[in-house]
Amino acid sequence: MKKAVVLLSGGIDSAVCAAIAIEKGYKIYTIAFDYGQRNRLEMDAAAGLSEVLGATRHKAFRVDLSQLGGSAITDKSIKVPEKEEKGVPVTYVPGRNLIFLSVAAAWGEIIGAKAIFIGANVRDYSGYPDCRGDFLEAFEKAVALGTKKETKIAVKAPLLLMTKTKIIKESRRLGIDLELTTSCYDPLEDGVPCEKCASCRIREKALKKALITDE
Amino acid sequence: MKKAVVLLSGGIDSAVCAAIAIEKGYKIYTIAFDYGQRNRLEMDAAAGLSEVLGATRHKAFRVDLSQLGGSAITDKSIKVPEKEEKGVPVTYVPGRNLIFLSVAAAWGEIIGAKAIFIGANVRDYSGYPDCRGDFLEAFEKAVALGTKKETKIAVKAPLLLMTKTKIIKESRRLGIDLELTTSCYDPLEDGVPCEKCASCRIREKALKKALITDE
Repeated sequence: MKKAVVLLSGGIDSAVCAAIAIEKGYKIYTIAFDYGQRNRLEMDAAAGLSEVLGATRHKAFRVDLSQLGGSAITDKSIKVPEKEEKGVPVTYVPGRNLIFLSVAAAWGEIIGAKAIFIGANVRDYSGYPDCRGDFLEAFEKAVALGTKKETKIAVKAPLLLMTKTKIIKESRRLGIDLELTTSCYDPLEDGVPCEKCASCRIREKALKKALITDE
Repeated sequence: MKKAVVLLSGGIDSAVCAAIAIEKGYKIYTIAFDYGQRNRLEMDAAAGLSEVLGATRHKAFRVDLSQLGGSAITDKSIKVPEKEEKGVPVTYVPGRNLIFLSVAAAWGEIIGAKAIFIGANVRDYSGYPDCRGDFLEAFEKAVALGTKKETKIAVKAPLLLMTKTKIIKESRRLGIDLELTTSCYDPLEDGVPCEKCASCRIREKALKKALITDE
């Protein structure tokens, strides 16, 4: 059985992405990043989802991106916005997917994986340059050239063009319990979602829309 | 003055690379990686070289690659070879330059750098796939596509095709004190180079050759 490294964030998208990887016949090796993000529930959610999905192995990888700063997600001095922003949002973490994909590629080379699965999605997060298809393609080429000759790792983003509503429907089809996921950028102290940040707003809107279009 | 992020390892190559970046008119921001390497002197050597070279800022970035294993450099259970190996050596750290360059690119985007300088060299380390020019070019493209529109970061490897002897001569021309550098993969407990690993052997050979060809 071919192996795939799957990036898990604890959110809906990456959980659906992992289930799709399994459906496509991959044995999945999940990796979650403890990168100094505000939402400290993400690591537990990712580990829980990995277990429920039946991953072969789960890795919690520490790389503290607050060492670099530059984002509301890792820098407590920058406020998470409660309204939509124009252009690249302040919640963009420079180089995040680049770094995460690089670590995933390194692990993939070590375990002999044939693919990396990432839940990147251009529709709702078009403001994040590292979620675009052309970036993922260029990254795949860099990995092919920067690893051993026998290493062949495809970068797959099956959710890239899906709407958030479609992703919610996929989660139902694949039997993912959304109660196990966490999306908020900056939860309250007791772990309750803020319901104000872009991630909460997008999730709420998509859940409502998925309900309506089901009827 | 344009800014550049320079990867410093504490060795000769990256020190020469940093001096070349300065010579080319860049204000340099040096970054050294504490990645769980055997040679624990590298971090101090890099910080010392950064100061002597007059970097604007120096960052010691922690990302423990022993979380992934798979190399004699980060995994104490794999022995560092004392003889030349065929193909990719066991001292190859999968994804190392990919991960380091990704972090450098992230920092570069945050500080508004126009270039990343890396002391990669194909001559002596042809066994390391992540030191090749075509990989560096592909990586540069991935960075261009995965960062903000206004971010333009070139990846420069001025030592790529130099012989080790040429690099030693460059270090003299640029006034770098090689006593400040450290090259050994696995120094003895008191920090003395092992004089057996590939890195020690290459350094010794190049130093001798540079002496002879000087005469």
